[in-house]
Amino acid sequence: MQHISSYRKAFVDYLNAYIELKEPLNLYEPINYILQLGGKRLRPVLTLMTAEIFACDYKKALDAALSVEVFHNFSLVHDDIMDDAPLRRGQITVHEKWDINTGILSGDAMLIMAYQLFENYEPKQFLDLAKLFSKTALEVCEGQQYDVDFETRDDVTIPEYLKMIEYKTAVLVGAAMKMGAIVANASQDCQDSIYNFGKHLGIAFQLQDDYLDAFGDPQTFGKQVGGDIIENKKTYLYLKALEFSNDEDTLQLERLYSVNPNDPSDKIDTVKQLFVASGSAEATKKEIENYTKKAFSVLDSLKISEENKNELKTFGNDLMNRNT
Amino acid sequence: MQHISSYRKAFVDYLNAYIELKEPLNLYEPINYILQLGGKRLRPVLTLMTAEIFACDYKKALDAALSVEVFHNFSLVHDDIMDDAPLRRGQITVHEKWDINTGILSGDAMLIMAYQLFENYEPKQFLDLAKLFSKTALEVCEGQQYDVDFETRDDVTIPEYLKMIEYKTAVLVGAAMKMGAIVANASQDCQDSIYNFGKHLGIAFQLQDDYLDAFGDPQTFGKQVGGDIIENKKTYLYLKALEFSNDEDTLQLERLYSVNPNDPSDKIDTVKQLFVASGSAEATKKEIENYTKKAFSVLDSLKISEENKNELKTFGNDLMNRNT
Repeated sequence: MQHISSYRKAFVDYLNAYIELKEPLNLYEPINYILQLGGKRLRPVLTLMTAEIFACDYKKALDAALSVEVFHNFSLVHDDIMDDAPLRRGQITVHEKWDINTGILSGDAMLIMAYQLFENYEPKQFLDLAKLFSKTALEVCEGQQYDVDFETRDDVTIPEYLKMIEYKTAVLVGAAMKMGAIVANASQDCQDSIYNFGKHLGIAFQLQDDYLDAFGDPQTFGKQVGGDIIENKKTYLYLKALEFSNDEDTLQLERLYSVNPNDPSDKIDTVKQLFVASGSAEATKKEIENYTKKAFSVLDSLKISEENKNELKTFGNDLMNRNT
Repeated sequence: MQHISSYRKAFVDYLNAYIELKEPLNLYEPINYILQLGGKRLRPVLTLMTAEIFACDYKKALDAALSVEVFHNFSLVHDDIMDDAPLRRGQITVHEKWDINTGILSGDAMLIMAYQLFENYEPKQFLDLAKLFSKTALEVCEGQQYDVDFETRDDVTIPEYLKMIEYKTAVLVGAAMKMGAIVANASQDCQDSIYNFGKHLGIAFQLQDDYLDAFGDPQTFGKQVGGDIIENKKTYLYLKALEFSNDEDTLQLERLYSVNPNDPSDKIDTVKQLFVASGSAEATKKEIENYTKKAFSVLDSLKISEENKNELKTFGNDLMNRNT
């Protein structure tokens, strides 16, 4: 297995060769723009890495990796319209740079292009990849819908929240890895195990995102610390704090999550104190650990070399120790 | 071969059995709503009919037919957002009944569901169907983009316009028929021929739509006669009139297409007179005839029974004599 950075380089080279400016320009320019905005390229790197773990040249997995990345960027373009987001990766979003109609149509084209990238695989692999892709893509849509629905609900449960982040974020991590296994002709057992590894790691990753949003180091956390609190976003930290709090603290938390002060620093401080005092911060850290352990325990039964298992664990630990 | 109406009934029964209300409701309710709004179900009927023409039980083509219809309705949902359309088939549009975000996300889910409908076919057929579907769907997006681009251009040529309607409308008619041929395991030659038959008929159909919009019988034409003129839409009739007109008439036509009078009846009358006087009306009828002939000439080389050829011709003629 190679180092993450060399997979990333190989992937970005492949992506750059894939991008071409076609007619109609107003359809394809926005696609090239979002694909070249950068990002960590985490999902496609996982596809390439997984292919090699199952003894297949990673180059064979480049089209599948690209499909995952094109799909991920499709979902960003459409989500940014829905969230009315001005910025993505520090740059202006597609619907702001062009317009909403362009964002819709270019996004649609990307979803189709993601399927086309499987066409070079033989029929059985094409079927397996496209089936997994469709199932995953539909779950991502469902996850996005749950996320939208939760904004206006005040009775969201922890299991519902976990299902939402599983669908919206984690299944694509699992699918990215499983695609590498499919390309490598790994057994069904191996495919399912690596999918579960990715999915559990994806849930842990998203929970950690919730945690770091409140408790991360502003110097190293990519986004604005406290952003979720400012937006009154009902994250795991918030839901768990409600579960653990007495009536008085619950009322205070709910009141704080119904206001949008011009200077949010007091609100952020108070909410963070409630997250800690209620035991929610600790419980969230515990849950992150649980899901990371769940991911790693899948590896025990997986028939791959110890070296590869350790690589996956190192990768998982690096991911989970971004900022603690 | 059976009668069109019995294919339509079989298709609608299958569609109704397919529709189920799943969670999240806000994602799937709009999908069920648009799929049950009705419409002529022309494309799926063509898929079923073509399967039988190539000696295959039409029931085997029901999933492919449903995929075409789900895709068609996906494109309607997203196009209606882009066109800010309040009504579809006389009923309130999805983004008006719910909101734009719902329209975007439910549309996305439909595009994925259209691919999933191919999953019951064996790997090679799945590959052929999905490949054709992706190519076609991307062309439909490109056609929609050209249509949007043309709104703000005053130098659109006739070949550009024909390419736009080919992509936006006609390729899906060709693909609907070719899918029936793929399911029936027809030869590549047969698949290509029936695709071209459908595509040329689709272009003729769209040109006739342009023609009937101005010259159709208000009693039988489904839409408001003169609608394109009111909206200053640069149809074939308009572009051909510009090509044939002297400087004076050209100026008048361009002036009329830059205004939006409260009572458009005088504008409609004058424009229609210019369409006739310039020879554009006649040229458009000629072009419809040309494309219909092109479609029929494909049938000559097709190795199917005379009876089936006549059925296809009857179908084409019925379609082309909607209102003349």
